[in-house]
Amino acid sequence: MREINKEKALVVFSGGQDSTTCLYWAKQMFKEVSALTFIYGQKHIQEVDAAERIARQAGVHWDKMDVSFIAHLGRNSLTDSTMEMDQMQPVGGVPNTFVPGRNLFFLSVAAVYARERGISHIVTGVGETDFSGYPDCRDAFIKSLNVSLNLAMDEQFVIHTPLMWIDKAETWAMADRLGVFDIVRNETLTCYNGIKGDGCGHCPACRLRREGLEKYLATKNHG
Amino acid sequence: MREINKEKALVVFSGGQDSTTCLYWAKQMFKEVSALTFIYGQKHIQEVDAAERIARQAGVHWDKMDVSFIAHLGRNSLTDSTMEMDQMQPVGGVPNTFVPGRNLFFLSVAAVYARERGISHIVTGVGETDFSGYPDCRDAFIKSLNVSLNLAMDEQFVIHTPLMWIDKAETWAMADRLGVFDIVRNETLTCYNGIKGDGCGHCPACRLRREGLEKYLATKNHG
Repeated sequence: MREINKEKALVVFSGGQDSTTCLYWAKQMFKEVSALTFIYGQKHIQEVDAAERIARQAGVHWDKMDVSFIAHLGRNSLTDSTMEMDQMQPVGGVPNTFVPGRNLFFLSVAAVYARERGISHIVTGVGETDFSGYPDCRDAFIKSLNVSLNLAMDEQFVIHTPLMWIDKAETWAMADRLGVFDIVRNETLTCYNGIKGDGCGHCPACRLRREGLEKYLATKNHG
Repeated sequence: MREINKEKALVVFSGGQDSTTCLYWAKQMFKEVSALTFIYGQKHIQEVDAAERIARQAGVHWDKMDVSFIAHLGRNSLTDSTMEMDQMQPVGGVPNTFVPGRNLFFLSVAAVYARERGISHIVTGVGETDFSGYPDCRDAFIKSLNVSLNLAMDEQFVIHTPLMWIDKAETWAMADRLGVFDIVRNETLTCYNGIKGDGCGHCPACRLRREGLEKYLATKNHG
């Protein structure tokens, strides 16, 4: 086992609300933060541009990696343009935006990337609270994979999931505490239709984001 | 969790001695066997041709998948033609043919592939006995990853490692018991210099294979 490097962290970074909040969380926790954005046949390449812009604005090292092979492994709507985005009704318990084991691949690639650069800490914005049927967002999976990655490469990675047990409203609160509420609100891209900030307003991602925002603002104003 | 399908198995298949022995082991254990060969920037594309030929001769379904992205994740001699193949001296305990987490990616991709086809059983020829410093060949890693894969996709995969605790001589004995000694000896490609059967004779893979073969034949003739 290599020694753990306590100063550096790598954030799995999409440029959305969750991973941007995680990026600023990591900046507070570690001396040197890198952000890694995965390209995997997203319909909206502006997601990658948004990610780069946000990372550069945050003053962290930014990199992208093409993992579009995962789009060919299983049929799914996030990468298959023949399927409708907003048909999010779960089929067999899992929404059709499901890329099987997406976080398995993201975190595995992130670990190899981190290893090459002497980084031990890996940060991801996955969470169970607004759990939408994705098994690879669960805490048990992340912890199991952490062990698997350490065994696979004889390393001592530590995967951090600052949003695991908080909901969208609490994620807005975290961004506010970190002093980046406006950046997260205006610069991040969560919308399935590729519109940054408040987005299209009607896709499931926009609805979830807005409901959390309204809940947080209501709490803040009356708190 | 889906129900487990007891009839179908997928073999991670390189066309070498180990995975060919596993292929015939699987044919004896399961009704329907598929073989999946990974392409990842091997110097010797004849490995893929050999794999296809052996699989077709065995009468199993064969498929290949391009995972050459893994070659770009870390620097290593199996895919980087600027490094010498036969310099296998471990550096920091791990030989320079090490693709970090190679089996992590192979088995993860195999699991997604298997899931799409209703296959629960996955067979791989990794083993600890002729352990050459690769952490991702260890039993603890394979078992940990098995759990991670099941959690990632809410499935019940079962990873089989028929060669985990046997050495090369015992692998030859297994091939013989399965009635495929000649096929394994003459058709498989293990040699780092891309020569099938007994190979170039001087690379580390050929030496390991020959030593096992001589040991097995000595035991057999005097047993």
